[in-house]
Amino acid sequence: MRELGEFALIARMNAGRAQAPGVLLGPGDDAAVLAAPDGRLAVTTDMLVQDRHFRLDWSAPEQIGRKAIAQNAADVVAMGAVPTAFVVALGCPGATPVAVIDGLTAGMWAEAGRACGASIAGGDLVRSPELVISVTALGDLEGRAPVLRSGSRAGDVVAVAGRLGWSAAGLHILLERAAVTPSPPDGADAPDAVTARGGSGTQAAGAGASATGGCTPLGGFAPGPRSAGADTLAADSLAAHRAPRPPYAAVLDALRAGARPTAMADTSDGLLADLAHIAEASGVAVDLDSTALADPALAELAAALEHDAAQWILTGGEDHAFVATWPAGTELPPGWRAIGRVTAGSGVTVDGAEYEGPRGWESFAGAGSPPVGDPR
Amino acid sequence: MRELGEFALIARMNAGRAQAPGVLLGPGDDAAVLAAPDGRLAVTTDMLVQDRHFRLDWSAPEQIGRKAIAQNAADVVAMGAVPTAFVVALGCPGATPVAVIDGLTAGMWAEAGRACGASIAGGDLVRSPELVISVTALGDLEGRAPVLRSGSRAGDVVAVAGRLGWSAAGLHILLERAAVTPSPPDGADAPDAVTARGGSGTQAAGAGASATGGCTPLGGFAPGPRSAGADTLAADSLAAHRAPRPPYAAVLDALRAGARPTAMADTSDGLLADLAHIAEASGVAVDLDSTALADPALAELAAALEHDAAQWILTGGEDHAFVATWPAGTELPPGWRAIGRVTAGSGVTVDGAEYEGPRGWESFAGAGSPPVGDPR
Repeated sequence: MRELGEFALIARMNAGRAQAPGVLLGPGDDAAVLAAPDGRLAVTTDMLVQDRHFRLDWSAPEQIGRKAIAQNAADVVAMGAVPTAFVVALGCPGATPVAVIDGLTAGMWAEAGRACGASIAGGDLVRSPELVISVTALGDLEGRAPVLRSGSRAGDVVAVAGRLGWSAAGLHILLERAAVTPSPPDGADAPDAVTARGGSGTQAAGAGASATGGCTPLGGFAPGPRSAGADTLAADSLAAHRAPRPPYAAVLDALRAGARPTAMADTSDGLLADLAHIAEASGVAVDLDSTALADPALAELAAALEHDAAQWILTGGEDHAFVATWPAGTELPPGWRAIGRVTAGSGVTVDGAEYEGPRGWESFAGAGSPPVGDPR
Repeated sequence: MRELGEFALIARMNAGRAQAPGVLLGPGDDAAVLAAPDGRLAVTTDMLVQDRHFRLDWSAPEQIGRKAIAQNAADVVAMGAVPTAFVVALGCPGATPVAVIDGLTAGMWAEAGRACGASIAGGDLVRSPELVISVTALGDLEGRAPVLRSGSRAGDVVAVAGRLGWSAAGLHILLERAAVTPSPPDGADAPDAVTARGGSGTQAAGAGASATGGCTPLGGFAPGPRSAGADTLAADSLAAHRAPRPPYAAVLDALRAGARPTAMADTSDGLLADLAHIAEASGVAVDLDSTALADPALAELAAALEHDAAQWILTGGEDHAFVATWPAGTELPPGWRAIGRVTAGSGVTVDGAEYEGPRGWESFAGAGSPPVGDPR
């Protein structure tokens, strides 16, 4: 890529791309110009660092590009705004194959399009020791008030749109693989099956493996009889981790139809952590209903992997589902399901009790942090 | 810093900060909300990577923060827009001293304030192997058409606001110091004087030193008699490199007073390179007048350093001055000086001839690239 040069690469990244209608001036000048018909714009930024937030041997460049856009688009949608455009600053080593840049770019454009027809309006390309992707997303509020974290009131219903825990399950599988093979030779092209490398499902498993503790040998996830669907479920979870698909439409269709949540966030840090932010900002407590949170398919996968589905659901980050609180009596819009209740007080409980398992982690949380999987 | 944790650090970075009036909702939710009274927003993003775009032993964190904001603000102003707000994604090693973050933050806020009272409306903080600062700037067009690169017409006057070549001179001094002492122990706190470490100005100089070739021993910049002002000039150039001060007001006051350049850019890549972009986008040629470009003070510094001031002026990046073309007969607004003429044709010449010296360089330009000083 250093042979192509910065300007040629930027031209290549923009070649043949059609800008969204809200992009009045695209790449090529000192700045882009966006329409802001509402008179306001929502704006958010997230940075992804190679081997911290993604690994090139775990994800295809196209998936990494999708994820970078999705996590920013989800933040904009969680404010109740429609993504208008993205700008992307990309740092990469001079030896980066052009195919990696092509894949990243294709993924970013694909997810921008999925996020309500937005586009990449501009960016920057610099050299850096490892890949760094910094995305800023902009969104239009379409005349509505932004949906803040601070609006929850006691009596509200807590509801979620999108799946919870699947990204964490995928990360779990990748981490266990990596613990056995630090640099998996199969990389992102490996078959995403529980049995992909271990042969028969009757192979002996490492006993007592957990997400934070010991490692289960590859292919040895299932100690007992296993459903024929476990491999499919594992592939699902890996896909969810590599390229989350936030259900933007569940939020935006509801808002456009007049539904009004009192507070909303996307589940980037994990359900408990994100609801804790809402509870704190709103001065309320939240109690979750474990029965409503149960996910039979994820439970089946968890059983096959000898893991705890509830932990993935409650603390797993990066699903980029949407969690919101709705006034009592609201008929939940399509795509939303009730999972709990807002009450007076503070904090977040599950079935009335504090969750005792491990929580989500922070970027600078120290020794306990996994090498990738930072939800931010 | 890893002990503080991500959320505590973010709180620390935002503590006591007053948001600009155009920031309707600041940090703390999924996204910020900005006013866009014009119905449009200009947006641009630039990434700075440690040891590529800045060095912690060359610049104080506060200067690095200023530079990160300034280069983005200059892009917004070069479109004819007023900076409204910035969002900042910051990657840093877990061992980064909190004082470094404090300095970066202070510098960013100071320059945002200088950029017409804007503020830092939001951001992201992640861990990365080296410092990475990714800034997105947003600006309001105040009802005016954006000033593009494509509007130049033959007969226009080329004019500049701000100093040219001073950042390159400062980089030259830093590179020569580094060639002698790879990791200068004095760092950003060193006295910024030509004679700072070499004692008397009569010390013998390394003969024939140049910016791209051999190295001049520290303190040996001046082979002959030197003006008493050389140390001050060197300090000026170092300050210009470490924290450029784009003359935002020269552009915005002119626009608000009704002046209308036909094309404009900031000099981030070097005057010749940035004018080449304008010439290409507009389908015109530009001829510069070397006499009008002459800078006696820079020439004095260049003589003391045995360097060519014209090269700094013509190809040095990162000054973030503004260059614009104005209709013939325009009385140039305060702060602007004519430096050339737009003609029919293509390309950029100096006194009617092609510039033969080395050009500005690209991020991925390969072996010839200096370790820092990437203008983007």
